[in-house]
Amino acid sequence: MSKQVDAQLQIAELRARIDDIDERIVQLLNERACQALAIRELKPEAQLGLYDPKREEEIFERLASLNEGPLFSDDLRAIYAAILRVSKEMRS
Amino acid sequence: MSKQVDAQLQIAELRARIDDIDERIVQLLNERACQALAIRELKPEAQLGLYDPKREEEIFERLASLNEGPLFSDDLRAIYAAILRVSKEMRS
Repeated sequence: MSKQVDAQLQIAELRARIDDIDERIVQLLNERACQALAIRELKPEAQLGLYDPKREEEIFERLASLNEGPLFSDDLRAIYAAILRVSKEMRS
Repeated sequence: MSKQVDAQLQIAELRARIDDIDERIVQLLNERACQALAIRELKPEAQLGLYDPKREEEIFERLASLNEGPLFSDDLRAIYAAILRVSKEMRS
């Protein structure tokens, strides 16, 4: 087998692994969204504002403390900025 | 217990669940990054370009097909735009 074809097969295998990982990430993002919607419904009764910058900062700090790489904490922050933005804009 | 305090306790519990979910998401994002780095190293030998819009579109379509909500597929697309951007900008 040529080196080129061998590399292409290896890439196909790695992409299949990424597909499996993505399936789990999608499930977790939806589970996260369910909890976020439940929190949002409780906020008026808890007399908490819908937007809580302190909680967001807490999340970013926690991500950094959990991070073992190869992503940098700034990368996780950029990804979570999108997750939190989507979360705020969800319709219940 | 007042309704306000009860709602606050429920929120604290839901946030703890989100923290657990985030821990798993961070781990999966890093696993994904490892595979993406391995793919990038193989690309020259496979004679594939570093940026592959067809593969990106395939990922977006797959996310939509896996999605069971409550997130919309456009939400997943927005989150994955950040994941794929970070992935392209990673240093090996």
